[in-house]
Amino acid sequence: MHDPDPIFGQAYLQERISSEFPLARHIDITVERADDLGLELSAPLEPNANFKGTAFGGSLFSVAVLTGWAWVTRYLDVRRIAADAVIQESTIRYLVPVHGVIRASLAIPALLDVEKFQKMMQRSGRGRIRLAVDIRHESGLAAQFSGVFAAARR
Amino acid sequence: MHDPDPIFGQAYLQERISSEFPLARHIDITVERADDLGLELSAPLEPNANFKGTAFGGSLFSVAVLTGWAWVTRYLDVRRIAADAVIQESTIRYLVPVHGVIRASLAIPALLDVEKFQKMMQRSGRGRIRLAVDIRHESGLAAQFSGVFAAARR
Repeated sequence: MHDPDPIFGQAYLQERISSEFPLARHIDITVERADDLGLELSAPLEPNANFKGTAFGGSLFSVAVLTGWAWVTRYLDVRRIAADAVIQESTIRYLVPVHGVIRASLAIPALLDVEKFQKMMQRSGRGRIRLAVDIRHESGLAAQFSGVFAAARR
Repeated sequence: MHDPDPIFGQAYLQERISSEFPLARHIDITVERADDLGLELSAPLEPNANFKGTAFGGSLFSVAVLTGWAWVTRYLDVRRIAADAVIQESTIRYLVPVHGVIRASLAIPALLDVEKFQKMMQRSGRGRIRLAVDIRHESGLAAQFSGVFAAARR
């Protein structure tokens, strides 16, 4: 017996997201990358398009929030901290319509913020961290998401 | 020939949302009320639940943003203004998990804001208005959404 994805990477998070969020299956989210240097999700336009052929704002939000959730979940799992992450509050700005594949990439948070989060988890079993996610399309930045995620020990 | 829903009410917006946003059909959104005094949408938990049996944050956001979109769309259509509405930026705060039916209700905007929006549309064919939507569940307020919607003449 061996762990098929010992680093809690792309395949692990794909399985977590697909099994824990039925809507993510409908949005057809793919975890493109998940390691210490980056976290990227994508979704095809088709199930997320509105009648104008651009991505629905609720789909862009869903891809962004799951990108943040995936970062927190991976952070906790890598450190064997048995905790669940939820979104607490978030802001999203839509810059231009997305006409093709939706690509979300997380900005790796500052070390100071990560250490603060880690200390909160150690002290109280609860922690909060703000994460930024950019939504890109073929021609560049399409939307900017910023959300506070809360984790609590199970 | 007669208009089946001359006041651009519940049935009209249900048809608009269901036909223009495929994801709304999957989320199973119902327009519960749409008149000058209120705009309410609902969605059942089942297609929107995560593995913990609570509503996914992306689903709550989607119901809220479509409630705002429906208000702007109805406002324009009642006045025979041929324009499309899109979400420009928004903030959502999640207060408590939703374990049952998702209910979104729009706070009718202040008359001053509506008049400002109307003047912008008249002068330039473009307008912006901030709308607030509450997400409620059986026991009370569950999430608060505030978004700026932009309309532009076709």
